[in-house]
Amino acid sequence: MPQALNTNRKIVLNSRPVGSPASENFHLIQDEVPVPGEGQVLLRTVYLSLDPYMRGRMSDAPSYAPPVGVGEVMVGGTINRVVRSNNPKFQDDDLVLGNVGWQDYALTDGNDLVALGNAQHPSHFLGVLGMPGFTAYAGLLKIGQPKPGETVVVAAASGAVGSVVGQVAKLKGARVIGIAGGKEKCDFVVSSLGFDNCIDHRSPHFANQLAAACPNGIDVYFENVGGAVFDAVLPLLNVEARVPLCGLIAHYNDTALPSGPDRLPVLMASILTRRLRAQGFIISDFYQSTFQEFRRDMTAWVSQGEVKVREDVVSGLENAPEAFIGMLRGKNFGKLVVKVSDE
Amino acid sequence: MPQALNTNRKIVLNSRPVGSPASENFHLIQDEVPVPGEGQVLLRTVYLSLDPYMRGRMSDAPSYAPPVGVGEVMVGGTINRVVRSNNPKFQDDDLVLGNVGWQDYALTDGNDLVALGNAQHPSHFLGVLGMPGFTAYAGLLKIGQPKPGETVVVAAASGAVGSVVGQVAKLKGARVIGIAGGKEKCDFVVSSLGFDNCIDHRSPHFANQLAAACPNGIDVYFENVGGAVFDAVLPLLNVEARVPLCGLIAHYNDTALPSGPDRLPVLMASILTRRLRAQGFIISDFYQSTFQEFRRDMTAWVSQGEVKVREDVVSGLENAPEAFIGMLRGKNFGKLVVKVSDE
Repeated sequence: MPQALNTNRKIVLNSRPVGSPASENFHLIQDEVPVPGEGQVLLRTVYLSLDPYMRGRMSDAPSYAPPVGVGEVMVGGTINRVVRSNNPKFQDDDLVLGNVGWQDYALTDGNDLVALGNAQHPSHFLGVLGMPGFTAYAGLLKIGQPKPGETVVVAAASGAVGSVVGQVAKLKGARVIGIAGGKEKCDFVVSSLGFDNCIDHRSPHFANQLAAACPNGIDVYFENVGGAVFDAVLPLLNVEARVPLCGLIAHYNDTALPSGPDRLPVLMASILTRRLRAQGFIISDFYQSTFQEFRRDMTAWVSQGEVKVREDVVSGLENAPEAFIGMLRGKNFGKLVVKVSDE
Repeated sequence: MPQALNTNRKIVLNSRPVGSPASENFHLIQDEVPVPGEGQVLLRTVYLSLDPYMRGRMSDAPSYAPPVGVGEVMVGGTINRVVRSNNPKFQDDDLVLGNVGWQDYALTDGNDLVALGNAQHPSHFLGVLGMPGFTAYAGLLKIGQPKPGETVVVAAASGAVGSVVGQVAKLKGARVIGIAGGKEKCDFVVSSLGFDNCIDHRSPHFANQLAAACPNGIDVYFENVGGAVFDAVLPLLNVEARVPLCGLIAHYNDTALPSGPDRLPVLMASILTRRLRAQGFIISDFYQSTFQEFRRDMTAWVSQGEVKVREDVVSGLENAPEAFIGMLRGKNFGKLVVKVSDE
């Protein structure tokens, strides 16, 4: 569906998913391109970020952010071009980091925009230099606190967050074991990202292979998956291991709890007897204390090639729902972004 | 069974319990009182501390301390009188803090003894001024970190650890809700220890009563119970709540996991979405950093009556097994100690 002139396409939440989101949970509507009022900025979307947290926003279960209302535009970080600025802080044609969600055009008062100047890879500000990269950096260094020689395990190792976690842990002197889905991703994680090893969680021998790859146990497990991956990690956690809890993508589509026995007491006993620290976080908690440090370090690492970036770019806003649904099944390979229009 | 002259009674582990310990898991044997060699100190036990952690030592499941071997004397903290010292650091008749376990007499090289001088209440060094008090102090203040006005909930509120946790939290300006078994204990926790409220976990309406007592949720939950108590606490934990994990007495006698569904993902999701920090600890981790501070503060608070002490004193070493078994069922009321011989 090509974009008609003067038309603003918006993808709205059509209904709340039960289990895995499906295409019918989304609805593409057409609207007029809005006209900026006094002080307002009209934005055109260039890139839209797709991230696992959006699954949470589709549900109305209590969480740390309010849900998207049915009929409302799906939320999401964006890279935008300024089409028309009535705000003295921005000029027509500026490239900015925005947060206008799944649509071609949007109005804003400009307060939530960050000017990107002549950024060479603007989409990086949705990934390694943006929210996912910062999540990796702060969660690993401020909660995980890996020491040189310790073993760090990271799930979803080829993804936007996991790939950064592992590379930063390597830079800090840790031994790093990734977990990813399939041989191709595992090969990439080791040969391109420089992890010490990567285990395929689809292997029938996954738990044994992970144990063999961690002969000294696990000191930091950066959790963004849960499910069978966590089940294999838990017995390997060392005394005083740290578990920064960033996501649980394996459970986002759950409609019921797994059958028994009830292992809640197992987790509690593990935390007790191995003096684990399990800590959930959202990245907004760290902006004030850690963002400057992150941006300085990560910009240097990326420009020096010490942190490598892989993006999975899907073309066309209309393809966002399918790409998002696939991401929850591990189909993306690298940071998933939608190219909505030309830069 | 009165003590025969020149006889050393020892209570040894007779067999490992399956489920709740029973009297047949213990065995009282008689031996000769040992003779101190060069540099050695012969000790007579005055008080023996009974603590929940000993249940763990009776099992050979992996934990942070090695198990007691079958046929070996049960471990435990003790207050001892020096009978005969061949060690220049101690004199006959000194009162010391020791760790000689469930027996009338023991030999030591003196390295693990702490002289108590003319301590007015020597048994306090097994409770409020000793390991349980230090556990409460360090777990609450270093992991729980309550702020004035926050809500602190503590289970086993009349016990050796819980009673101190709650009183220290009150001194730090928190609102403190205890959980205890039965009306008598709850009344004591409120009227004598000064907690703001105390809920009887045996009540059929326990979970609702706890929720009603915590209208602003729970900011710190000092966990030493687990089971149904934790189940009632979990939904009430606030964003960024802290859970110092000190013990899980409700599970120590478990022989199998509870039936399903499996709620491990529920706990993980709670930690994630509410950014909880759950951290297990053992007190030895804190000795170097925090013991001096603890001893100074707690000595002052006890002497000024700001922290009140209740002991449950059982007479006679031979009654230790029954007292210990009862403690695991919540039968004690205050810090449980066995008076083994006169001071």
